[in-house]
Amino acid sequence: MTMIQTDAVVIGAGPVGLFQAFQLGLLGLQAHLVDVLPEPGGQCVALYPDKPIYDIPGLPVCTGRELSAQLLAQAAPFLKADTTTGLAPLHLGEQVMRLEVDDTLPLGPFRFHVHTSTGTHLAARAVFVAAGAGAFVPKTLPIPGMQASAPAWNLHHHLPAVGQQAPWAGAHLVIAGGGDEALQSVLDILAQPSDQHPAQLTLLHRRDQFQAEATLQSQVRALIDTGRIDLTLGVPEACETTDSLGLIALRLAAAQGVTRLPLDHLLVRLGMSPKLGPLSDWGLALDRKQVSVNPATFESNVPGIYAVGDINTYPGKKRLLLCGFHEATLAAHAASLALNPDEPQHLLYTTTSPLLHRRLGLT
Amino acid sequence: MTMIQTDAVVIGAGPVGLFQAFQLGLLGLQAHLVDVLPEPGGQCVALYPDKPIYDIPGLPVCTGRELSAQLLAQAAPFLKADTTTGLAPLHLGEQVMRLEVDDTLPLGPFRFHVHTSTGTHLAARAVFVAAGAGAFVPKTLPIPGMQASAPAWNLHHHLPAVGQQAPWAGAHLVIAGGGDEALQSVLDILAQPSDQHPAQLTLLHRRDQFQAEATLQSQVRALIDTGRIDLTLGVPEACETTDSLGLIALRLAAAQGVTRLPLDHLLVRLGMSPKLGPLSDWGLALDRKQVSVNPATFESNVPGIYAVGDINTYPGKKRLLLCGFHEATLAAHAASLALNPDEPQHLLYTTTSPLLHRRLGLT
Repeated sequence: MTMIQTDAVVIGAGPVGLFQAFQLGLLGLQAHLVDVLPEPGGQCVALYPDKPIYDIPGLPVCTGRELSAQLLAQAAPFLKADTTTGLAPLHLGEQVMRLEVDDTLPLGPFRFHVHTSTGTHLAARAVFVAAGAGAFVPKTLPIPGMQASAPAWNLHHHLPAVGQQAPWAGAHLVIAGGGDEALQSVLDILAQPSDQHPAQLTLLHRRDQFQAEATLQSQVRALIDTGRIDLTLGVPEACETTDSLGLIALRLAAAQGVTRLPLDHLLVRLGMSPKLGPLSDWGLALDRKQVSVNPATFESNVPGIYAVGDINTYPGKKRLLLCGFHEATLAAHAASLALNPDEPQHLLYTTTSPLLHRRLGLT
Repeated sequence: MTMIQTDAVVIGAGPVGLFQAFQLGLLGLQAHLVDVLPEPGGQCVALYPDKPIYDIPGLPVCTGRELSAQLLAQAAPFLKADTTTGLAPLHLGEQVMRLEVDDTLPLGPFRFHVHTSTGTHLAARAVFVAAGAGAFVPKTLPIPGMQASAPAWNLHHHLPAVGQQAPWAGAHLVIAGGGDEALQSVLDILAQPSDQHPAQLTLLHRRDQFQAEATLQSQVRALIDTGRIDLTLGVPEACETTDSLGLIALRLAAAQGVTRLPLDHLLVRLGMSPKLGPLSDWGLALDRKQVSVNPATFESNVPGIYAVGDINTYPGKKRLLLCGFHEATLAAHAASLALNPDEPQHLLYTTTSPLLHRRLGLT
């Protein structure tokens, strides 16, 4: 496992995390971003990609997806892949699992060690928690064997990324859920080339009624009515696994008693739920699950760990994106001063500063 | 003189002042904006309309003019003219001259009285100072008679607004200055229909060299060389006025001794300079000419007077537009709580709130 050394780790690649990387970059500090979601944008993209937002200053209306794309474009000069390693500083689909602070070192050197769920090890001089409501992790079925730290290989919570093989091609796939996410997954899977289709596709829901948009419902109903997919009703109570095959069946409480649903792959699509996760073990002073920060620096009680956006709290706090942008900016300046106390810290403007223009990659 | 009653007066219609009106509007509070400049946008439009800005979150690049236009469009739902009086809540070309606080009243009623240079009287429940570096007022000639509180009727510092008659049509106009502003004014005036032209146009500058963009210089030089305009060199030392005619001549220190430049109209175009102005008499606690505020509310030491944007200071303050947007937002919420303490104050989101959608004028 390679260790990556960087000035800053930003936990969360939502709007505020992206802007954090931008502000750090303007100050000459390289950031690596880590997010559990498969794409940048956080809640904006995961929960309301197409809903209009009206209160971003200077953007009378934009969708969550548009805002994220703009913030990603803005931060792009600072998210380039390393020319020697080829590694980009954006680690997606990875959850931060562990943070070690080397208390024997002063501020400045690489005293923070961040380890992610896929084994990435980032050594950093400062950490910025921009984790919103926490890591947005998919809800799973509330039965034993589902939340295991080593989930079965054939238990899934996401669709394959664009261009990736469908693991369930030619097999029996069960999709659990009755909301927008589950129904949309049915349509997305069947919209793939036919060699990526499961041989059999079963939608599992607790009752014969969906909580989803009307158009989604009618499309999925048509697939059920024509026998293209199966609908199975029941509440999962337990699962069956084997060492070699992983998950092989679910046991369901159904109207007709307990039934057994054999399967090759299980895709759980019950929506997302935010989890503070490992953050709660880092010794950060919390106030009602938010990280308490100093509003002059947005530093937590642990020197070198900053918290910005929805995850922090301070007197007057409002959980608005535009406030997170301000917080990220002041946090970047505070970190710059703490890490490089001997450098001049007078404020430069992007409109006029040749140094900032060079950092932004402008001619 | 009519008195206008309003929830809030915002002093300054720059980017932060415009966003202040927007945030107040979202909270159901009507604001009236006052600015000394002839158009909204503040410094962004007056000083760097065409320069790119790179650090507005979600706008990878925009000019000062574009940003102002976007903020004006965003605030538009809250800047509509009153349906009965026809008055729009945007008072441009007016400087706030006087503020009276009726200390006998508690917070809530119209305890603030704002009087502007054109006689507008606004009675307000709260005041937001979003005055940037102060009122951007045109520099005038440093000679007696120019800074008078009642300037001569034929002394000008601005071009007429679009569609207005030129006061100097058919007369002798002297333009003082040798920078971009003065040279651009020469071209702008001659670009008008010929019935708006002065009969004689003299450019007055202290030496035969301009400090302006090369293209402006060459255009104006061509006008001088062809005799279309006169160039007079000299440093104004005094002016002559009469009661009936106003300003009639300038006395100049020139290479050949003191000379006299007769004129019908004088247009002084020496650029802008920010003035804290009457603000300094309002009992606001200042720290190095900035208004000290509480960073939870952005309220000054005078209850009900808030300060946002470049004019304020607090621990960690950075004079950046995006910080001003945050400050305006928290100030609006603090004022809403102070003015309407019995109303529920839970945060609504523009993405989801039907109440905010109604206030924004969305269907």
